[in-house]
Amino acid sequence: MVETQVIERLKRHVELNNKEALKNELNSMHSADIAEIFENISPEERLDYFHYLDLEKAADILEHITPQMQVELLGAVDKETAAKIISRMPHDILADFLGDLSDEEINNYLERLPGRVSSQIRELLSYPEDTAGGIMTTEYLYVYENMTVEETFAYVRSKAGTNIDFYYIYVVDREGHLLGVLSLRGLIGSPLDARVGSIMTTDVFKVTTNDDQEYVADSLIKYGYLALPVVDEFNRLKGIVTWDDAHYVNEEETTEEIYASSGISTGLADEDEILTGRLSLAIKARSPWLLITLVGAFGAVQVADHFKGILSQLPVIAIFIPLLIGLGGNIGTQSVTLMVRGLSTGQVMMSSALHHIFREFRVGLVIGLIFGVLVMIVTWNWKNNMALGVVVGAAMAANMAIATVIGTFSPFVLKRFNIDPAVASGPFIATAIDIIGLAVYFILVTLFLDFLP
Amino acid sequence: MVETQVIERLKRHVELNNKEALKNELNSMHSADIAEIFENISPEERLDYFHYLDLEKAADILEHITPQMQVELLGAVDKETAAKIISRMPHDILADFLGDLSDEEINNYLERLPGRVSSQIRELLSYPEDTAGGIMTTEYLYVYENMTVEETFAYVRSKAGTNIDFYYIYVVDREGHLLGVLSLRGLIGSPLDARVGSIMTTDVFKVTTNDDQEYVADSLIKYGYLALPVVDEFNRLKGIVTWDDAHYVNEEETTEEIYASSGISTGLADEDEILTGRLSLAIKARSPWLLITLVGAFGAVQVADHFKGILSQLPVIAIFIPLLIGLGGNIGTQSVTLMVRGLSTGQVMMSSALHHIFREFRVGLVIGLIFGVLVMIVTWNWKNNMALGVVVGAAMAANMAIATVIGTFSPFVLKRFNIDPAVASGPFIATAIDIIGLAVYFILVTLFLDFLP
Repeated sequence: MVETQVIERLKRHVELNNKEALKNELNSMHSADIAEIFENISPEERLDYFHYLDLEKAADILEHITPQMQVELLGAVDKETAAKIISRMPHDILADFLGDLSDEEINNYLERLPGRVSSQIRELLSYPEDTAGGIMTTEYLYVYENMTVEETFAYVRSKAGTNIDFYYIYVVDREGHLLGVLSLRGLIGSPLDARVGSIMTTDVFKVTTNDDQEYVADSLIKYGYLALPVVDEFNRLKGIVTWDDAHYVNEEETTEEIYASSGISTGLADEDEILTGRLSLAIKARSPWLLITLVGAFGAVQVADHFKGILSQLPVIAIFIPLLIGLGGNIGTQSVTLMVRGLSTGQVMMSSALHHIFREFRVGLVIGLIFGVLVMIVTWNWKNNMALGVVVGAAMAANMAIATVIGTFSPFVLKRFNIDPAVASGPFIATAIDIIGLAVYFILVTLFLDFLP
Repeated sequence: MVETQVIERLKRHVELNNKEALKNELNSMHSADIAEIFENISPEERLDYFHYLDLEKAADILEHITPQMQVELLGAVDKETAAKIISRMPHDILADFLGDLSDEEINNYLERLPGRVSSQIRELLSYPEDTAGGIMTTEYLYVYENMTVEETFAYVRSKAGTNIDFYYIYVVDREGHLLGVLSLRGLIGSPLDARVGSIMTTDVFKVTTNDDQEYVADSLIKYGYLALPVVDEFNRLKGIVTWDDAHYVNEEETTEEIYASSGISTGLADEDEILTGRLSLAIKARSPWLLITLVGAFGAVQVADHFKGILSQLPVIAIFIPLLIGLGGNIGTQSVTLMVRGLSTGQVMMSSALHHIFREFRVGLVIGLIFGVLVMIVTWNWKNNMALGVVVGAAMAANMAIATVIGTFSPFVLKRFNIDPAVASGPFIATAIDIIGLAVYFILVTLFLDFLP
């Protein structure tokens, strides 16, 4: 979304060695825009620009770029500057960055930070990546229950210049136990001498550090909160998860769902490693379902082999195999996709499984009949044999109707047995449709054998 | 996420005719939780519960349920109550609800609302659904530039009890032109006698009413804003789009992307109509790509037909067609999925196309060799013929390597020609791989014909 003129202008500043202009232009841009430019220029240009950025801006940009680019840029500036930059990064982003480094490198960075910050970061690093603890930040505002609204305002005012997001102000006791929450709007509407303990909301929706990130993100979006407090098992406030974290969790979970649907397993390798990491990780993530499909495909081969007598008698029937398998697979995949996505967004419920199976069956039947007639006419004319046209057309219609039913049915069955339907549906369905579709075809051929060429 | 105990308890209240307890229990729950329960009970129970809800709670719940359920519930209460409920709904949600009704029904509802509100809603209804105007709400806080911080606080305080989300306070002139924006935190940090015109941020990121919803949502998330102002072509402030709107836009766009990848077109029917609307819409959305696949599949049939001489000579080779097509298609789809998703999230860039093609080719080659050897060994042993094993194994390896290249290549080519890669990749790739895979197989068979059984 950054205009190419901007990029051109930056390049001209570099060419003309117009350092001051470059510096001003870069630092007046939004960090998200600079990050976008960084993705579209060479590593050398990137590094060049990075040196001209203010420390704040540099820290902001690191939020928006890939882990690889973070390492590339921070590794290229001197250690002191790097320390100054990372001390300005939000704690959750910093922990994510450090999480990918070796213990030695982590220590190198952390020992340059103030003791309190570095121990907070170490704590963040101790939580698994995909839990509330792994995505939360330790920067939030908190007050004690006996403070007044006026004191709270003074405290908020003192933090107005920092980059801490304060959607809510949390109320804790001296041991850090979460007691309640205040919103800025609630605070503005309250008398200045009121104690926060008397005006806070005590019915707080909170999550614990080891809650799954998907549950955390879904809850935040479901209830429409800007942030959720994260507590440990003793109800001590440990951090907050904000709405933008929820967005990134969502994006990650969607990617996993999409990958899973084509048989790419994110259980064995991180989803960005599959795209950019070591080749062996990509192979590990992609082979398991291919192997299962291979076994299933040999099932289909067995079915064809079973009818090899017919194949030698009537080789022409072999040429329609790709057609039948292809379209059965396609319409079946459509049904799987509709159900898996619907189950994931909540538009499809387990309780309405029968309704959907019946509905999809009707869709499959209508489309199957249309396509069956089409295929019949084409085949009949092409091979000049009505019976062949009828058999192939009928197989097509049956195949498509069956495929929609299998495609609709299997996600519900898998979910019923607590298997993620997104993961298992793809290869399962492809194989089942291949086997059943071929069997139907060959049986039809056998029945009509006397009429075929 | 609502516990079944809660549902059981509600049902017991109904059985025991314990009206007061039912009422209290329902109204103390979060509206999102009640909405979740509504999805899992019968329409009669739903309506029963709905009657016990306070007007505010009833209005809140309508935000969280499907359009069909909104119509069902609002249609069942008397007109006066319905008017009271909708007058408490956020304007954007109300406009979405009304947007699905007939003009007559819209008028019925709107004439019961205050004139100013009903004309705001009419304006919202005039924007296309998928634009900034179509997703924005007209409820926001605005002040004039010559007001002081103290006056602004008084104004904010007067709105603290309403359900207007005020992440930001907008500064406009008397004609409604957007001049700047204030945040609550900025306001708290400013002297009470300052004019808002002197402390506001004037460099406001804004969108116009006819901007595409995807652009609006992406910008909001990219810059991390809680809300974006929406202006008309004369820079007059018309509404705001909030972070939760962006979330729903994102979810909708993701659904469209996922549907598209399996050849379900959301251009011809709305994505929720495909799942629940008239059967003809589902068929319309699903047929076009199936038809294209049909044409492509006949291409594959032609390839097979071209080699029918070999098929009659050696019928056994027909039985491996499902295996070769199946696995080529699968690994090719994996590559397509990785590229399409990567292009959509920004992890894959057009400029690195060659890098990805080469990388995927290597993945395909390694997996292809492993699978080729496996298939060779199995086939050799099964059919007791080494040459057959070698041919099928080699075809498998070649097929998988070629499939990854086609699968990686085509999304970039499609995007280059401004065709949505998510839409076109699925059927395109399936067909291309079928045709090329079969051709490779038959050519290999022809070359090794003398050694085959």
